[in-house]
Formats: sequence, structure tokens, C-alpha cells
Amino acid sequence: DPDMPVRPSILHRKIVAESRLFKVEELHLKFENGEQRTYERLVSQGPGAVMVVAVDDEGQVVLIREYAGGFHDYCLTLPKGLVEPGEDILAAANRELMEETGFGACRLEPLTQLSLAPNYMGHKMHVVLARDLYACKLEGDEPEPLEVQLYPLARLNELVDRDDFHEGRSVAALFITRERLRQEMGQWQELDGA
Amino acid sequence: DPDMPVRPSILHRKIVAESRLFKVEELHLKFENGEQRTYERLVSQGPGAVMVVAVDDEGQVVLIREYAGGFHDYCLTLPKGLVEPGEDILAAANRELMEETGFGACRLEPLTQLSLAPNYMGHKMHVVLARDLYACKLEGDEPEPLEVQLYPLARLNELVDRDDFHEGRSVAALFITRERLRQEMGQWQELDGA
Repeated sequence: DPDMPVRPSILHRKIVAESRLFKVEELHLKFENGEQRTYERLVSQGPGAVMVVAVDDEGQVVLIREYAGGFHDYCLTLPKGLVEPGEDILAAANRELMEETGFGACRLEPLTQLSLAPNYMGHKMHVVLARDLYACKLEGDEPEPLEVQLYPLARLNELVDRDDFHEGRSVAALFITRERLRQEMGQWQELDGA
Repeated sequence: DPDMPVRPSILHRKIVAESRLFKVEELHLKFENGEQRTYERLVSQGPGAVMVVAVDDEGQVVLIREYAGGFHDYCLTLPKGLVEPGEDILAAANRELMEETGFGACRLEPLTQLSLAPNYMGHKMHVVLARDLYACKLEGDEPEPLEVQLYPLARLNELVDRDDFHEGRSVAALFITRERLRQEMGQWQELDGA
């Protein structure tokens, strides 16, 4: 893309803070126009993370209610977790689904990738659409059993209005899923009409 | 809500890492079933952040292309920034819009609130819908001028497929905006039909 701007050069970089889960990197940048700035970002480590939109034959999506440390409260969200080293994305999605919800899926496909806060973090979450569900519970590392809820995708607007469902990536993943399912339905209707 | 689970008790908490922008807190938790775990989370500071969905009279949304440190690359995204101490949310939205895009809005309303990663962060972003736009440029603190693009909301599915547009909160905000505008249009059509 010839319109694409030139990236700033990184003059220096160093790790300025580190804990068990987080690592903060400082970047000293020089932009193309000569401006210099110091940025901080979280370094993303490991093979990434996966989020699962599991939809049953009645068009219901599988949600979990779990304790969210960031808010010190319980939130509704989609099943998700870290991909293990060497693990396939779709396999990781099915494993997390089984651990967190007690469902497995015969049909798994990549749906999209979503980032968190691109200015401060290089993390991208693989979102996987899971269908043809069956009962299968795997042991996970949760401190307590997660509550599983089946929620009709047709009532997505109500879900988004709830106070306990607010994670940007979950909201985005469900709207993208609804678009995808509508497109597929449209294709079937065209076939029916032909 | 009698179904709501009891939150774990916080046995200890301490700051384990800190930089200019980030502060990591360790929580030692005891869940209702007796299980104990150590969690880490980013502490959110200050009066929060705001994201602006500005839609012009032709149904185009105002996007910016800016350098994103997390990916060390340029991304398409919505205008956003920190609310200043004592500043009203809608005023902060209009200020960020003017600084980053050169537009102001006569009509601003809260649309939703979106979180980042509830398990690890307590951050919530206020999303503001801005309409009745006019030209007005304020000086911001950007290292270089941001590129502004007007993108038809009717082509949201194409936008979501682009490699340089992937922030979960931006995707969610645009789908929620499209739902809102469709509902409003539906109400007008009902009035017309009556």
C-alpha cells in the first residue's frame, strides 16, 4: 500500500516492569517527521489466546459466568483461554470449550481475530465458531465450577444491554457470528429459491 | 439476584510491578468452596477513557489511522482518549473527536460501556455516539497528524474483514451503533406508516 505511512524507528527499548503475568516494555520512538516520544506497551508472550462462540442447533450461544479479577465481580462472557505451546488453534478452542462448558464441537472454524488495545498491547485473540455440539466435560484449572448459560443469539441486543456482559471482544465476536449465520441462511434461501 | 454467586474474599493484595503507565496488583483469593488462588490484574487509574463513534449525515463513520505501539504498526480505529479529571464524558468525547479528526458534534449521547479483559483489567471504556458533525480542529498531543477516513457504516462487514481493523471494542461499538441507527430508522418508518 503506497499510502501506508512509514513506521517510526525504535531508538531504544527496554523492559521497565515485570511480574508473573505482565511484562512492560518502554519504546523510545522517532517518527518520520522527527518527533520523538516514549511509549509503553505490554509485551505479549506465548502462542496466544482463543475465544469460542459455540452455537447449538437451536441458535443458542454457550455463555459462562465466571469470577473476573479485574472487576472483583462475576461477569457473563464467552469461553476462552490460552493456546498451549504446539497446540492447534481449533484444538485449543475445543479443549477450552470442554473444560469450561462441558460441550465439545464436531465443527470448528476460525471466525476472526480481535485485538485488545492496539496502542498498548500486541495481543490478538483467535475467535473460533463451534457447531454440532455434544456433551463432553474435561477437567480444567478453574477454582470453582463455572455456571453455563445458553442464550438465544436472536436476543443479542438484550444481552449487550446487560450490566454483566460488557467485554468488547465478546460483544464483537457475537455480532460477527450473527452476521455469518445470517449470510449462510441467505445462501440456503437462495438455493431453495433456485 | 439470588442466583448470583458469592465473590471470593481477598486475603491479601499488593502492588507487585509498576511503571509510568501500568500498575500490577496481586490478589490472594479464597473462593466460597475454600479454593485459594493468586491472581494478577492491572489496576485502572484516573477517570477512565472514552471512544467516539461519529456518524455524518451520509451514514459514514469517522475513522483514524494511527501508529499503534502494541503492534508497532498503523491501525484503523475509532477516535479515543483519556477523560481528564473533572471532565464530563460527553465533553471529553467531543474534545478527543476535535483533536483527532477535525470534527466536532452538536449531538452527543452515551451509547454503551465496554471492558477490555475483565479477568485481568478493571478498565471500562465509555462509548459515545456523535452526530450533527461540523468542522473544528483542536490541537492534540499526537506526534504526527492522524489520517482521517470516512467509512460507510453500510459496509461494516467489509471493514471488519480488513487486516488493519481488529480492535474488539471498535468492532463492538460499530455493530452497536448500526443496531441503534436501524432501530431509530424503524421507529421513523412506523411513524410514517401511522
